[in-house]
Amino acid sequence: MIKVGVLGATGYAGSELVRILTNHKDVEITLLVSHSYAGQKMSDIYPSMKGVCDITLSELDASVAAEKCDVVFTALPHGASKEVIPALYEKGLVVIDLSGDYSYNDKEVYKQWYGAEHTSPELLEVSVYGMPELHREEIKKTKLIGNPGCYTTCSILGLAPLVKNKAVELKNIIIDAKSGVTGAGRGVSLDYHFCECTENMKAYKVATHRHTSEIEQELSLLAGEDIILSFTPHLVPLKRGILATIYANLDGSYTKEELIKMYQDFYKDEYFVRIYENGLPETNHVAGSNFVDIGLTVDKRLNRVIISSAIDNIYKGAAGQAVQNMNIIFGLDEKEAIGGAGFYL
Amino acid sequence: MIKVGVLGATGYAGSELVRILTNHKDVEITLLVSHSYAGQKMSDIYPSMKGVCDITLSELDASVAAEKCDVVFTALPHGASKEVIPALYEKGLVVIDLSGDYSYNDKEVYKQWYGAEHTSPELLEVSVYGMPELHREEIKKTKLIGNPGCYTTCSILGLAPLVKNKAVELKNIIIDAKSGVTGAGRGVSLDYHFCECTENMKAYKVATHRHTSEIEQELSLLAGEDIILSFTPHLVPLKRGILATIYANLDGSYTKEELIKMYQDFYKDEYFVRIYENGLPETNHVAGSNFVDIGLTVDKRLNRVIISSAIDNIYKGAAGQAVQNMNIIFGLDEKEAIGGAGFYL
Amino acid sequence: MIKVGVLGATGYAGSELVRILTNHKDVEITLLVSHSYAGQKMSDIYPSMKGVCDITLSELDASVAAEKCDVVFTALPHGASKEVIPALYEKGLVVIDLSGDYSYNDKEVYKQWYGAEHTSPELLEVSVYGMPELHREEIKKTKLIGNPGCYTTCSILGLAPLVKNKAVELKNIIIDAKSGVTGAGRGVSLDYHFCECTENMKAYKVATHRHTSEIEQELSLLAGEDIILSFTPHLVPLKRGILATIYANLDGSYTKEELIKMYQDFYKDEYFVRIYENGLPETNHVAGSNFVDIGLTVDKRLNRVIISSAIDNIYKGAAGQAVQNMNIIFGLDEKEAIGGAGFYL
Amino acid sequence: MIKVGVLGATGYAGSELVRILTNHKDVEITLLVSHSYAGQKMSDIYPSMKGVCDITLSELDASVAAEKCDVVFTALPHGASKEVIPALYEKGLVVIDLSGDYSYNDKEVYKQWYGAEHTSPELLEVSVYGMPELHREEIKKTKLIGNPGCYTTCSILGLAPLVKNKAVELKNIIIDAKSGVTGAGRGVSLDYHFCECTENMKAYKVATHRHTSEIEQELSLLAGEDIILSFTPHLVPLKRGILATIYANLDGSYTKEELIKMYQDFYKDEYFVRIYENGLPETNHVAGSNFVDIGLTVDKRLNRVIISSAIDNIYKGAAGQAVQNMNIIFGLDEKEAIGGAGFYL
Repeated sequence: MIKVGVLGATGYAGSELVRILTNHKDVEITLLVSHSYAGQKMSDIYPSMKGVCDITLSELDASVAAEKCDVVFTALPHGASKEVIPALYEKGLVVIDLSGDYSYNDKEVYKQWYGAEHTSPELLEVSVYGMPELHREEIKKTKLIGNPGCYTTCSILGLAPLVKNKAVELKNIIIDAKSGVTGAGRGVSLDYHFCECTENMKAYKVATHRHTSEIEQELSLLAGEDIILSFTPHLVPLKRGILATIYANLDGSYTKEELIKMYQDFYKDEYFVRIYENGLPETNHVAGSNFVDIGLTVDKRLNRVIISSAIDNIYKGAAGQAVQNMNIIFGLDEKEAIGGAGFYL
Repeated sequence: MIKVGVLGATGYAGSELVRILTNHKDVEITLLVSHSYAGQKMSDIYPSMKGVCDITLSELDASVAAEKCDVVFTALPHGASKEVIPALYEKGLVVIDLSGDYSYNDKEVYKQWYGAEHTSPELLEVSVYGMPELHREEIKKTKLIGNPGCYTTCSILGLAPLVKNKAVELKNIIIDAKSGVTGAGRGVSLDYHFCECTENMKAYKVATHRHTSEIEQELSLLAGEDIILSFTPHLVPLKRGILATIYANLDGSYTKEELIKMYQDFYKDEYFVRIYENGLPETNHVAGSNFVDIGLTVDKRLNRVIISSAIDNIYKGAAGQAVQNMNIIFGLDEKEAIGGAGFYL
Repeated sequence: MIKVGVLGATGYAGSELVRILTNHKDVEITLLVSHSYAGQKMSDIYPSMKGVCDITLSELDASVAAEKCDVVFTALPHGASKEVIPALYEKGLVVIDLSGDYSYNDKEVYKQWYGAEHTSPELLEVSVYGMPELHREEIKKTKLIGNPGCYTTCSILGLAPLVKNKAVELKNIIIDAKSGVTGAGRGVSLDYHFCECTENMKAYKVATHRHTSEIEQELSLLAGEDIILSFTPHLVPLKRGILATIYANLDGSYTKEELIKMYQDFYKDEYFVRIYENGLPETNHVAGSNFVDIGLTVDKRLNRVIISSAIDNIYKGAAGQAVQNMNIIFGLDEKEAIGGAGFYL
Repeated sequence: MIKVGVLGATGYAGSELVRILTNHKDVEITLLVSHSYAGQKMSDIYPSMKGVCDITLSELDASVAAEKCDVVFTALPHGASKEVIPALYEKGLVVIDLSGDYSYNDKEVYKQWYGAEHTSPELLEVSVYGMPELHREEIKKTKLIGNPGCYTTCSILGLAPLVKNKAVELKNIIIDAKSGVTGAGRGVSLDYHFCECTENMKAYKVATHRHTSEIEQELSLLAGEDIILSFTPHLVPLKRGILATIYANLDGSYTKEELIKMYQDFYKDEYFVRIYENGLPETNHVAGSNFVDIGLTVDKRLNRVIISSAIDNIYKGAAGQAVQNMNIIFGLDEKEAIGGAGFYL
């Protein structure tokens, strides 16, 4: 059994990790860390876990973690991760980080979007961007994963085949993404008060959201040249799900069928990426699952492709993908514990 | 591998059954029947199942079912079940029926609440009411389960220890139950139009809902005398979950702690029943799980107990409990495929 | 023009008051007080009011209030009201208080439920419980209104005709009430985080909610003898609306028609109370309006009546009823600004 | 008093019209037509209107309409409008049509997007596109209004100043619009079943939605040259509200402040258009009101402007704007009955 710890276990991504891991036949949860709730049981904070996971939450102690765990997931706020990860990594643990702190190849890009120097830039050189569809081989060999953000997973995978195959112009790419409220985490704020969120929607952080930089990094890698693009996040009144609607001008003439074929080829070995030959994905097709569902429309009038890409933001966009990375690193069945169909209801 | 068929696979209870069964390590789904969608794939109707369950839906043929299956779940509208079940039962199949058709011991009670003669009353004598917490031993021996309704599961289990122990007066029992909209099924109606349901709630079928009779049957059995009671269902704007708030006058003097102890003793071997020593259950503690969560308050001023009982109506209240019954009948681990924590989010 | 001030203008009840008052042809808003947002404009906090109400919010100064206003509405947290109201009342202002502080006839009852001595018990003697359907004549003559709470309005008006006419037993009355989340106010708490509220419901403060005492006070007055009863509040995932389901044993034999007639007679002059001869009220029948909608069912088996009573908790249950009281006190058309149909959608 | 009729009174747009008109001091509702519910009262179908509007619904009879009404609103499905409007118009009635049937200047454009010949093309020549911000003078003189669609109002007003002032490139304009479910109307369909809509979102009719053509018509008029653009509608789980996120490449160098000033100048006489100097509009700022709220962001990296434009789809996007047009035609205060702040809650 692989011994697993979760740091930040009581946040939304952390609790989803715990939920998934309790269904994983090859792991044992040995450590749950929560600064806010240390001393209480996981099931006191999430009564849904009564009888399933009654582990007592503790404060972080890197030595204890190293003793108890083979792998730790860090589901901490941005910035907090890079305070604790170097110590964990140094002790030889596999670390899968759900913040954006280790998602960058270039510390300058980090600095530009996060407004501060990276405090462990040497680790950026060993960390791997944990998107199996693009980096599976590197993932197998690393001990430090920068687990992709939710918006980025949805956006990058929605565009990758087109960018790789140079089927679209690299200018004028626009990603209009809509997210459920779990994406904002469990922190309390008037913005996420039920009465302010329900029956409401809004754009936020337009042109400044940090996930933009992750998206640009990965698409630029695929294209072999620099891409900058528009990314607009929105908050919509549901819990789980991101829908990215992506616009790109076709570079050449393509039918819908040709593009679908291009996606099917690109993702032919990917269980978790489902391409729609007909219809378009909806977020309840993926909620509660690790799937990425992609459909597209060709607008002949404008020679433009419009892609719909849907994921569950805290599953494939956080906890599920993190477990997928763990499965890969430890040589387990990549689908173990995360291969099921979503809730739909 | 146990070969399983689901009749009415595209309804909400049916689709939840399929979702659960795809995670069950000891079964193989061999037959999915849907009159409305015969010829299409399950994943055409529920795209959440693409790649997970792409079985083609077929029309019902009892001979084919008998050939292909060891057990069939019938998730059909009330009335439809009793048209098809005698043939299936006769062929030696284990039948787990999610309608109310085989939930009665007395055909007269059926007639009174359903307004028609039962067409296979002889089967009522062999059918077992599939509530494992009360009838596990009988379940092990039957081939025909009347799987309890959602409201009834929540209500009966919320009251059973008190009634069995004669801790409450049998008069003046009131069950005020609130259900999510999946309980109404997938049939299209203005009543369930998003804009009519969301931001709305209502009582319905007051004093006439059929589940009343199931509740009275089982509680009367426990009490050893006839109980009649008030049961009021309500529709609230969420998908999964029933919360029953139950009022009963205490017969004698009891503290909260004594009553909690009574529940803990009664359910001491029941993994799926969780008693709250503190706090009260909420529906998101059980949504997506097979758990029944129960808490209570003693009102000293009135010498009355108020019980909160929560389940997921389509899981423990339908599909999950059905799988639990199958697990029992076939001697499998009772928790297999249904033992996990709920979604919470 | 009547000059009006609102204290606590940026809470949910306060903002609803402002919204209603901006549509009132006989009033001018001259003062908006908000401790949290003093110095900002009302429309900065509620952008919905841009161009409609751009008044700058100020700190409370009783002298200024007395100068600028004929009437003030106090929409402050419980306890805060009684700190400021004596000074306002002393200056001759009409005060309509939306807290429970002046809703009691008996300071001992206040103490029992609020756990502290009332600091201005002499004002309890001049204050009037502002429920026009029961106290219109006294309202006309007072300068201090204890505006009824949301649960209490819904509950008392749902039971008043039966209690007054001694048609029900006074024991075993049970009120099971379900409220939308605006009832909890605008204060930030994990309990009201969108992801914790949506797709969830729960009972809370069972047998201890303070509104119980208001309900018992008014029903006891109507009955001419002491009534104690069960009141259970619930939180359901919608914004506006309370539905109270009320159970009482009939004292004698009544048909539904006879009871409906009893309600119609009792409320024959009340524009805002609507009795359903058929069907039952739903919260979207009253959301955004000052109406109280009441329907009922007689359960012959149990000789019990089950009443459905619905209001909008922040309208008839707070801001709308407060304006109704102002209209009565100032001799205006009682319906002015509040007589319209609800949103439905 | 102006005598008003509403055809299609029981649809969502129709019922919102009735609700608004019951608050209008200068009109009397004299005719409500509903094919589905003829013979019943408006308040039977919408109990929210009990006591407010109990008019009996009738079948359409053009002669009766002409006798009883000065103006009729036609809130009928597309296609149905043009069957009945010629007869009404001929009788001298003012007709305000909420379908798209009379929204076109060019019958060929109609044919292209609706797939059929227009049956009364001669009326297209006298009809006026009822967007007061662009066509107020023509509206004053017409007797036939093609009332703009919801998406189109939000989109056109969000872009008009930029297009008119040639501040953006006319290529690569992208409108990504998200709508609440009332936009789909009251027709019953599995697509709008609560359980299929809530906690879900999707794009639909990508590149083919008919409102595209209305948007292009009006923007082309403003630009003085043909514009074709991407318009993508989405369904999100809320009732009222559209948020359009609009992308356009700046043609020249502009600061946010310069663009805001451009909008403020363009809409300087428009009460119902509110420009945000700071922050961005959210749909709950406009829900229940006739306001259009517009904010914007300049992305310096891409020299692109991203506009947020929000309306209530059944108010400013349908019923409210229709009443605004009536107010203009009849020389009433343009704000009468529709000038209030939205619900927010």
